[in-house]
Amino acid sequence: MHAADVLHGVYYLTSQPIPGFAQIPIDSDESPLQKTSVGPLPQSYMRHISVCDSSQYGIMGANFPALELMALYTASAMHDYDHPGRTNAFLVSTFAAEAILYNDRSVLENHHAATAWSLFLSRPEYNWLRCLDKAEFKRFRFLVIELILATDLKRHFEILAEFNAKMNDDEASGIDWFAETDRLLVIEMCIKLADINGPCKEHNIHIQWTHRIAEEFYEQGDEEERLGLPISPFMNRRNPQLAKLQESFINHLVAPLCNAYGEAGLLPGVWEYELPTNAERKDRSDQSTQSAESKSLGNKS
Amino acid sequence: MHAADVLHGVYYLTSQPIPGFAQIPIDSDESPLQKTSVGPLPQSYMRHISVCDSSQYGIMGANFPALELMALYTASAMHDYDHPGRTNAFLVSTFAAEAILYNDRSVLENHHAATAWSLFLSRPEYNWLRCLDKAEFKRFRFLVIELILATDLKRHFEILAEFNAKMNDDEASGIDWFAETDRLLVIEMCIKLADINGPCKEHNIHIQWTHRIAEEFYEQGDEEERLGLPISPFMNRRNPQLAKLQESFINHLVAPLCNAYGEAGLLPGVWEYELPTNAERKDRSDQSTQSAESKSLGNKS
Repeated sequence: MHAADVLHGVYYLTSQPIPGFAQIPIDSDESPLQKTSVGPLPQSYMRHISVCDSSQYGIMGANFPALELMALYTASAMHDYDHPGRTNAFLVSTFAAEAILYNDRSVLENHHAATAWSLFLSRPEYNWLRCLDKAEFKRFRFLVIELILATDLKRHFEILAEFNAKMNDDEASGIDWFAETDRLLVIEMCIKLADINGPCKEHNIHIQWTHRIAEEFYEQGDEEERLGLPISPFMNRRNPQLAKLQESFINHLVAPLCNAYGEAGLLPGVWEYELPTNAERKDRSDQSTQSAESKSLGNKS
Repeated sequence: MHAADVLHGVYYLTSQPIPGFAQIPIDSDESPLQKTSVGPLPQSYMRHISVCDSSQYGIMGANFPALELMALYTASAMHDYDHPGRTNAFLVSTFAAEAILYNDRSVLENHHAATAWSLFLSRPEYNWLRCLDKAEFKRFRFLVIELILATDLKRHFEILAEFNAKMNDDEASGIDWFAETDRLLVIEMCIKLADINGPCKEHNIHIQWTHRIAEEFYEQGDEEERLGLPISPFMNRRNPQLAKLQESFINHLVAPLCNAYGEAGLLPGVWEYELPTNAERKDRSDQSTQSAESKSLGNKS
């Protein structure tokens, strides 16, 4: 279910109009879309995403070769596969078999990627990309693995700092959409944002995800207690601290990520002057169950 | 057998007199040796290694806490455990189970570390360090894993560049023996040098190791042929190119590593003025089978 949510997130971030985002013209010889034998996105797709005024909005996915978008979507589906419901820190400190296997390094993320790929390759009919040529398949596999491993929150500040240095700092050069490493950095941020965007959703959805993660934490706390270990912070079900947990999660992880991504002008949304008035908004919200995501703001004016 | 050779190498590099090497006084309060509850090396050991004139020679091991030396020796013994006799590139390109398991990253080195640690932890009597306290054991495990993963030659130039920046470049700061990260970098170089020092040995020993690696390569070449893959360079037994293989290995990998290590003043040896004359040397070599290693030169005058 979380995988579907992350897949939804990356699809949203790569397919919805971003105010002020500069798309590379599809017919540019230098467009990354021309640089893969997979070729440019089909015109039907381009028509679909050109509903907005292209002089003021752009679609991020239009600046990526289809192979890279497919890697992003595949990584999202795979990224938490066969999750044991325990944290890396727990697996490492209890000398769990997975931690020994992965030498204490990105234990869960390595496990998700390896088990998902093992399944993907286990039958020809599961591998829907078996018709790609060898070099393309190799790059696809490389990207999917990079993206899954980028979801290890131990690398959060490293990836965020790299992105800010490229996009937001005083001497930032900006993204070079023609450079593979720059595009990879952007989709790493994209999957990270989709992975931890719970607090950006409408309040009642955010609350649901919070209860789900809290229950997973409590189950780990129960096991820590059975093993005679100290119960990790926020994992004691007899001392729930949901507000404190979310405050820490939002302030330390989610907000800096969202702010960096928004400041770089990559968040879908609408220009401020096009926003509905408060009255209109209330009216609509009474009638609709539209998710918070599609109303979030990313305009950089 | 290679593991014993590497263990011999790191023992040699950490226990033999280095011309001009500055040992940290054993009674210095700031000595790294005082910074671990494992405590300083026993006096018997210090006497043993103080045979040389301490004003002109030093022992590198004397600047390391015992825990770190033990991690280095353990990593050397573990570092190629359960080696399948194939290269990382082969495992990755054939989608071998180990490559899937380790997401194409340092496949062999991850496998060596994980299987050796799995054995180490499988019975209490195998774990000779079970009496260490938790923090020490954790650091020991961390160091052993770091050292084994440092033997992936894919990281050769990265580690070498880091070492040169620290030790040999124009604005190099030199090693801070009180900094854990600096000491780790030195023992990473140490295990790397012990791992690929074949060409530094006496000629007939070098030749033996060359034939061993060549046979391993030919077996991979045989399998590549059976699988209908192109045979990798130097792996076709019907077209042996031992001299070219060694020339490439020495010029690209071994020599830059040895030169960096020697230039940093870390190679055991004797001062030039203490060298035996040619006549003396010939006389000795007729009488002895002493290995080339104990005569190698590391003096930086």
